[in-house]
Amino acid sequence: MTDITIIGAGNMGSALAGRFSSAGNSVQVLARDAAKANAAGGTAAGTIGDAITGSIVILAVPYPALGEIFTAYADALAGKIVVDMTNPVNGETFDGLDVPADASAAAEIAAKLPSASVLKAFNTNFAATLATGDVAGTPTTVLVAGDDADAKSALTDLIASSGLRALDAGSLKRARELEALGFLQILLAAGEKTSWTSGFALAK
Amino acid sequence: MTDITIIGAGNMGSALAGRFSSAGNSVQVLARDAAKANAAGGTAAGTIGDAITGSIVILAVPYPALGEIFTAYADALAGKIVVDMTNPVNGETFDGLDVPADASAAAEIAAKLPSASVLKAFNTNFAATLATGDVAGTPTTVLVAGDDADAKSALTDLIASSGLRALDAGSLKRARELEALGFLQILLAAGEKTSWTSGFALAK
Repeated sequence: MTDITIIGAGNMGSALAGRFSSAGNSVQVLARDAAKANAAGGTAAGTIGDAITGSIVILAVPYPALGEIFTAYADALAGKIVVDMTNPVNGETFDGLDVPADASAAAEIAAKLPSASVLKAFNTNFAATLATGDVAGTPTTVLVAGDDADAKSALTDLIASSGLRALDAGSLKRARELEALGFLQILLAAGEKTSWTSGFALAK
Repeated sequence: MTDITIIGAGNMGSALAGRFSSAGNSVQVLARDAAKANAAGGTAAGTIGDAITGSIVILAVPYPALGEIFTAYADALAGKIVVDMTNPVNGETFDGLDVPADASAAAEIAAKLPSASVLKAFNTNFAATLATGDVAGTPTTVLVAGDDADAKSALTDLIASSGLRALDAGSLKRARELEALGFLQILLAAGEKTSWTSGFALAK
């Protein structure tokens, strides 16, 4: 059993809360709205500002909301495995990312939280595919990038034991490619060239 | 019928030559080695330096070989639809791309060939999937990026009439994301996390 905290109770946070708690883990969900946190399918719920109980903390909020999380939890995230799933798409132009071209949201988070083990994961998966475990007939594959091998193993083990396929996608530097893939997939779904319930599948 | 010139007779060039000529197009294959060009499956063959006959020119050579092509054909490519399929992976570090972080190989080619209509395509497809039309049970999808709508239509029509699925992936700026995806897919295959005969499939 793993102690997990999911911050955010939207469709991504709820999909993971349901899956991880069904697999027997302890899942605390924290959100601005206590009712949404309660409804997300974890084993415990609270609001942002409450103490974090998990050793793996999944930031399931949109990129622009990260600042609020770090204000509330900068010290509390020291020593934790912190999972970034954001796609920092520029919401005005929809034509690029709101991070420097040679960086990534994950790299920015790692710089802000030097005492945490930051991983990039889930940003290339649409929420529906995390809930169903299926991308148009292919098992949903979660790509995980990070520099801390133990942290990466802990997360990939958690994902695999919860019924999804997890793959080590390399160092945290690869978050740049994962965010490019996430951005491209969002554009293709927004353009109705793929579905919000499928997207890219990775065949074995 | 479309007149196509494919420069390069490796596995990518041969896969496309076979597919496009089977669909009834005129396909000239040019390579350094006349015997390889002859064996590639086009309708005509020659060596690099011979006159280009196609209106769509597909550069099916590795990124480091592009300089040689431009030396031979800079003027001849004016007015053509030029298709870049390179993945400019740094062959020493295997840890990044040999283009500036905010650019792409396709953008560099477009700057070098201002009188050509440069498209990015095929770089997210492994050669085997272009030959078979299949990525582990999902039809092979070719993502095409470019700024010239007519050129993009000509290429997507050619691809679709040759039995593959083609999708408009946006402006040439999206070559950056396509090259990130191509790079990631190569790393995953090299790490045996996916197969060189499959990779990423895009579900509808």
